[in-house]
Amino acid sequence: MSARAYEEAARAAARAALAEDLAGYGDITGSVFSGDGRAQVVAREAGVLSGAAAFVATVALVDPALRVELLVADGGRFVAGDVLATLCGPFAAILAAERTGLNFLCRLSGVATLTARYVAETAGTSARIAATRKTTPGLRALEKQAVVHGGGTPHRFGLFDGAMIKDNHVAAAGGVRAAVELVRSGAAHVHALEVEVDTLDQLDEALDAGATIVLLDNMDTPAVREAVARIGGRALVEVSGGVRLGRVRELAEAGVDVISVGALTTRAPWLDLGLDMEG
Amino acid sequence: MSARAYEEAARAAARAALAEDLAGYGDITGSVFSGDGRAQVVAREAGVLSGAAAFVATVALVDPALRVELLVADGGRFVAGDVLATLCGPFAAILAAERTGLNFLCRLSGVATLTARYVAETAGTSARIAATRKTTPGLRALEKQAVVHGGGTPHRFGLFDGAMIKDNHVAAAGGVRAAVELVRSGAAHVHALEVEVDTLDQLDEALDAGATIVLLDNMDTPAVREAVARIGGRALVEVSGGVRLGRVRELAEAGVDVISVGALTTRAPWLDLGLDMEG
Amino acid sequence: MSARAYEEAARAAARAALAEDLAGYGDITGSVFSGDGRAQVVAREAGVLSGAAAFVATVALVDPALRVELLVADGGRFVAGDVLATLCGPFAAILAAERTGLNFLCRLSGVATLTARYVAETAGTSARIAATRKTTPGLRALEKQAVVHGGGTPHRFGLFDGAMIKDNHVAAAGGVRAAVELVRSGAAHVHALEVEVDTLDQLDEALDAGATIVLLDNMDTPAVREAVARIGGRALVEVSGGVRLGRVRELAEAGVDVISVGALTTRAPWLDLGLDMEG
Amino acid sequence: MSARAYEEAARAAARAALAEDLAGYGDITGSVFSGDGRAQVVAREAGVLSGAAAFVATVALVDPALRVELLVADGGRFVAGDVLATLCGPFAAILAAERTGLNFLCRLSGVATLTARYVAETAGTSARIAATRKTTPGLRALEKQAVVHGGGTPHRFGLFDGAMIKDNHVAAAGGVRAAVELVRSGAAHVHALEVEVDTLDQLDEALDAGATIVLLDNMDTPAVREAVARIGGRALVEVSGGVRLGRVRELAEAGVDVISVGALTTRAPWLDLGLDMEG
Amino acid sequence: MSARAYEEAARAAARAALAEDLAGYGDITGSVFSGDGRAQVVAREAGVLSGAAAFVATVALVDPALRVELLVADGGRFVAGDVLATLCGPFAAILAAERTGLNFLCRLSGVATLTARYVAETAGTSARIAATRKTTPGLRALEKQAVVHGGGTPHRFGLFDGAMIKDNHVAAAGGVRAAVELVRSGAAHVHALEVEVDTLDQLDEALDAGATIVLLDNMDTPAVREAVARIGGRALVEVSGGVRLGRVRELAEAGVDVISVGALTTRAPWLDLGLDMEG
Amino acid sequence: MSARAYEEAARAAARAALAEDLAGYGDITGSVFSGDGRAQVVAREAGVLSGAAAFVATVALVDPALRVELLVADGGRFVAGDVLATLCGPFAAILAAERTGLNFLCRLSGVATLTARYVAETAGTSARIAATRKTTPGLRALEKQAVVHGGGTPHRFGLFDGAMIKDNHVAAAGGVRAAVELVRSGAAHVHALEVEVDTLDQLDEALDAGATIVLLDNMDTPAVREAVARIGGRALVEVSGGVRLGRVRELAEAGVDVISVGALTTRAPWLDLGLDMEG
Repeated sequence: MSARAYEEAARAAARAALAEDLAGYGDITGSVFSGDGRAQVVAREAGVLSGAAAFVATVALVDPALRVELLVADGGRFVAGDVLATLCGPFAAILAAERTGLNFLCRLSGVATLTARYVAETAGTSARIAATRKTTPGLRALEKQAVVHGGGTPHRFGLFDGAMIKDNHVAAAGGVRAAVELVRSGAAHVHALEVEVDTLDQLDEALDAGATIVLLDNMDTPAVREAVARIGGRALVEVSGGVRLGRVRELAEAGVDVISVGALTTRAPWLDLGLDMEG
Repeated sequence: MSARAYEEAARAAARAALAEDLAGYGDITGSVFSGDGRAQVVAREAGVLSGAAAFVATVALVDPALRVELLVADGGRFVAGDVLATLCGPFAAILAAERTGLNFLCRLSGVATLTARYVAETAGTSARIAATRKTTPGLRALEKQAVVHGGGTPHRFGLFDGAMIKDNHVAAAGGVRAAVELVRSGAAHVHALEVEVDTLDQLDEALDAGATIVLLDNMDTPAVREAVARIGGRALVEVSGGVRLGRVRELAEAGVDVISVGALTTRAPWLDLGLDMEG
Repeated sequence: MSARAYEEAARAAARAALAEDLAGYGDITGSVFSGDGRAQVVAREAGVLSGAAAFVATVALVDPALRVELLVADGGRFVAGDVLATLCGPFAAILAAERTGLNFLCRLSGVATLTARYVAETAGTSARIAATRKTTPGLRALEKQAVVHGGGTPHRFGLFDGAMIKDNHVAAAGGVRAAVELVRSGAAHVHALEVEVDTLDQLDEALDAGATIVLLDNMDTPAVREAVARIGGRALVEVSGGVRLGRVRELAEAGVDVISVGALTTRAPWLDLGLDMEG
Repeated sequence: MSARAYEEAARAAARAALAEDLAGYGDITGSVFSGDGRAQVVAREAGVLSGAAAFVATVALVDPALRVELLVADGGRFVAGDVLATLCGPFAAILAAERTGLNFLCRLSGVATLTARYVAETAGTSARIAATRKTTPGLRALEKQAVVHGGGTPHRFGLFDGAMIKDNHVAAAGGVRAAVELVRSGAAHVHALEVEVDTLDQLDEALDAGATIVLLDNMDTPAVREAVARIGGRALVEVSGGVRLGRVRELAEAGVDVISVGALTTRAPWLDLGLDMEG
Repeated sequence: MSARAYEEAARAAARAALAEDLAGYGDITGSVFSGDGRAQVVAREAGVLSGAAAFVATVALVDPALRVELLVADGGRFVAGDVLATLCGPFAAILAAERTGLNFLCRLSGVATLTARYVAETAGTSARIAATRKTTPGLRALEKQAVVHGGGTPHRFGLFDGAMIKDNHVAAAGGVRAAVELVRSGAAHVHALEVEVDTLDQLDEALDAGATIVLLDNMDTPAVREAVARIGGRALVEVSGGVRLGRVRELAEAGVDVISVGALTTRAPWLDLGLDMEG
Repeated sequence: MSARAYEEAARAAARAALAEDLAGYGDITGSVFSGDGRAQVVAREAGVLSGAAAFVATVALVDPALRVELLVADGGRFVAGDVLATLCGPFAAILAAERTGLNFLCRLSGVATLTARYVAETAGTSARIAATRKTTPGLRALEKQAVVHGGGTPHRFGLFDGAMIKDNHVAAAGGVRAAVELVRSGAAHVHALEVEVDTLDQLDEALDAGATIVLLDNMDTPAVREAVARIGGRALVEVSGGVRLGRVRELAEAGVDVISVGALTTRAPWLDLGLDMEG
């Protein structure tokens, strides 16, 4: 993702999130406090950082007078006790930004951290861990980028920047080849076509139809190995289907190019990060 | 939450989520398919439903010609294999709505289902399980309502509809009483004041200052019991602080009114729901 | 209201107001004038200032090159002839900002000034003058804050940050107690409950039901005195119902805590303020 | 104003006003009440109606299931006790729409009613009562239309649909003629030019420069009479400058075409209208 | 058009245009390139510049760190090979802004350049070349201003800032005079009235009805000459109706005031401008 | 483009365009006319229709009571005199919608008609005529679809749904291969990579680097023929670079797959279509 797209998404998300927390009279508790303060974002457990842009955007939207310093960048690793960022400025502004800013960091670092664990399993292979479209509604750009911060690859952004022929399309078209031709007739010539196959027969049909990316869906590892051999470099190979951490290594070693994992965004607990006011 | 606020939040979230999935040329795979189809949302595991409003809004925004029938309502329980909803209409529209609609149902039903497990632990007591402000940025209304669908209570929506004096406020004001007076001077007379206390001494000070709601933060269960006794009905009693499922029962039996649990929204995995095309 | 909420509301209102005055080709009269100028906002009658944030926001949105200096702050008092602010910069920008900027100052200072007259009547008592929800559509935040600038208190912002049980709710529920219980079951535990009562019998019922704020609606002063005595500090006491200036003192001396006055926003004439170009 | 522009403005204003009243959880008091109800908008004093479109839009935005029947149309006259409209539908929706809907009707009918009093003073003459740009920020379209509903004429909408050369422009250009030529060079040929004059000498200069509309600013009535005579039909004649009700008749009889009155929108108290639940 | 209105329109159009080019992950090709670069906008053919404000706004929205220097201002003339502007800053930002920025310059300079050719034909006469409302949807302000940059005059902005009675209105009202009276009754007194006439009889009727601007529609040049003579200075004279370049001179010499030309915006080819990276 | 994306773009563009024409009081000429009318959109020259969705959206946004019937669909051919659509409903609404609705039809049918002429030149070959990103700012979706209605193909929508390595990227990376590798590392695996080459040497390098789409930029026809032979089906072949109508046939016969033509959107004059009121 371009830096501009990431930062725009962060600003938009920060604006929406602050609107949730600060309607009506705003912060009716903290806004009566005057004076300045200093605070630290502290890790209470180890992980990989993501969400820095949204954190910074949140702080800037609450009060441009708040100064924020990031001690760990997006994608950086930290351990429990590390100070990730410092805030300095109006006390009331720190209080108003605290929860919203942390929500971004905790959620997105949670995704990055879980991704990093999956990525670690692929060490020494050429397989990459990819995000899916199972992202929290409204946070797709930030969660896709959290996967990148964790070492993964983002896959297509949505239905518009990559064609993917799945079982329902094949059924509707009456076969893999017919589906490929139909979709190719409607898409632009610059759009790649990925074809999901459930069986080796479908795989052959997909390759015959000229698919340059194939998705092996819910195949067991021996079948994946055989598919990789049969493809023989003619297409990029992706696997998916409820892939849990323990199975990543054997898939990576089977020679696939991409392992897409919904759990990166659907099963990542928030990381435990807190904001401590200084003395 | 009023039905209107819930439905407005659902529509806004659906609009934002669809914009993520359908930029540019829209669904470049599915939009070439003509004809009508039927599909079912099927539970692949048991749970409590939430997100029906956002699912319905998603479908309506994709194509008003899509007809949706809900077989389970928000808050309803289901088991693996149950059909939760049916969709009927243009095949291309079903494909375009599928992922976004499911993302809402899976995320929000995950929250409702985890909440229901916490609520079950309070059976026979008067304690209620409450959400916190640790919600996914942009989804606060829907996640708060998911907690309600799971049997919980939503707590304040944001910083604006309930004053909560925490340790940082107390430190800044120089004491519990001073903090209460300062906040009361700035808030409207209709805003209630909740005071977080860490110790029994602070509890006394809060009660003396006229607090009508107290939050016992990170106290062990014996301390909670003693606090409840000391309060003696003069204030509503809330407990919080990393409360995991196994501790809910003893807290509820200690006589507290509200147990607020960040994990409802920070540690709930998505529920496994899928969309099956018919025929 | 937090400073942030006030300034955000000011910016949003200024943007909307400028869009009304500057569609199409913009200022088709003034925009042909080049060069710089200086102007003063001058009071043509005495009053209390409000609307400074919206005035400043208007000027900044018209042209960031316009420099504005406030000589009287929100809440400050002035007499006829006082210079309230100065503007310096492009002549065309001063002309484009003039009417919109003044409309805010004149309307909101009118509210603050009328409020100050009500507040003066409460001198020496503990009664506070409160705004209602009878605010000009689109200007609630600014008008509530104008009441604060005049020395009043803002009351709840809307239907969402304070529960208020009125006669219609009581009738629908079948009694004060039933209404209180119904509303309490739906509201969050941090939301206070105010109960409007028309008679002393209803007052007893409200206190029995645990109301911590009661609103005595349209009661004559002897009844208010009796009600205050009967409450005996168990609840905060608000009175309302077409309260005109001449009656404020006797209500304040009757011991009520809050007198809410719709007239602050429904009967306040604009203050007469003008903009004079210099030299 | 076109019906479309009026209704669009009404919808936009209703949306903004409801957002003020229904943030967070929405109506935390009324939303727990189920069942249907009926209510009437009743006049507590006589007047001229305005704001019907915004009232209807408010109701429709709160709940499309609410049925509203208008018994008096915009511009219609009524006396105390008249039923102006009825509402029928979900009880909770009536409660949520009540205050916002009334705020529109009370404010705008106040403007229409005051306008009608000014218009009545012009009976038998050809003079028209006109609004100014001293309108409540955000409500210009609706307040201009309220003046029309009261029998007045709306004047230019903003700085963009009519050129008006005032004293500041004349001073900057170095004379009336120079100002007229400068403005004409920048405006489109379809834009009329109105010229404000303070003296009869300036009037001559304006007529010589080809002004087709002149504004006599703050002239006493004898001077207005002489100006009208001198103009002799060569230009449309408008007067302005703190015109109070008692002076309208003599100005109208002096032969002016338009009397513009800031007080229509800056000094109109809200009309007293209420909503009564039935049964 | 005021400078403010032009710049606001430019910013809004730039924002909309960038959203078209940079959805999803943003620029998936260029965003991987780091480092700074320099580029020049170079004319590949001669013309008159327009669109500078939108070009600058595009660059600023892509990356505030990009520095742009304009070597030719809006309305300036240039020949093939001239450098119109330089860009300096992050290489990735230059690539992201290139196409969108150029699209504005090429389209709008095309309009300005064609306008200048029409204007050149009026040299030595008092006739002005005017734009129509046949503008590209969404670009009206910028295309009207491009006509001004080419030496033309913008005519009314839309249906709201100038009344124009056309054949359909006349037919509906039952005659020119009836149409004039009907429209005058509804418009504000500051709105001028232009009347379109097809014949000399209609012209007489329009002048009798007090029209101060007449539009001679689709008349041949002798008829235009006779109409101008008959009007004798009593009204401003506009001609329109498929006016091509070759006929402008004879119309201008016939003594008309305004020649409105749809082709300025409907038949102007884009100017050929390119962006060359340096070094 | 999906039907949904096309219709959403049409609605958004219609909304923006109407806002340009109907600010302030709206249509100050036509809105005073009551009663209903009928009108026809009539072709004054032959062509291919596009813009129907925006025309319909315009009409619906002006007044839902206007009924529109399309007699020619998007992509349909017509000759001078053909009735393309009929409108029936409030006379004032027809007048308010007329210009905006026609602007869409005239502009977009102009693009479709020019495209059809290019497409006709490819008859009997497998070459397709493609749009570029040289689209009018704000109208990309509609102009891309106009090219489709004319028989062309839309190419990538923006910088986000297709990677295209051009000369600047190659220069920055230090060679074709390096550029391909750099871009591939940043893009998602589902994004295809097109590589622009100026010479046959670059072509070899691109093919070696695994490019599956190559763009032959500004090559003469013999060079194109040689390039096609050298590629031998290993990649899709696109040509571009100021391709005028007269050269299309020889390029198509040279065996290229795609000919992209900026002139489709930068040099297409508006088609001459008018609206005639009936009776």
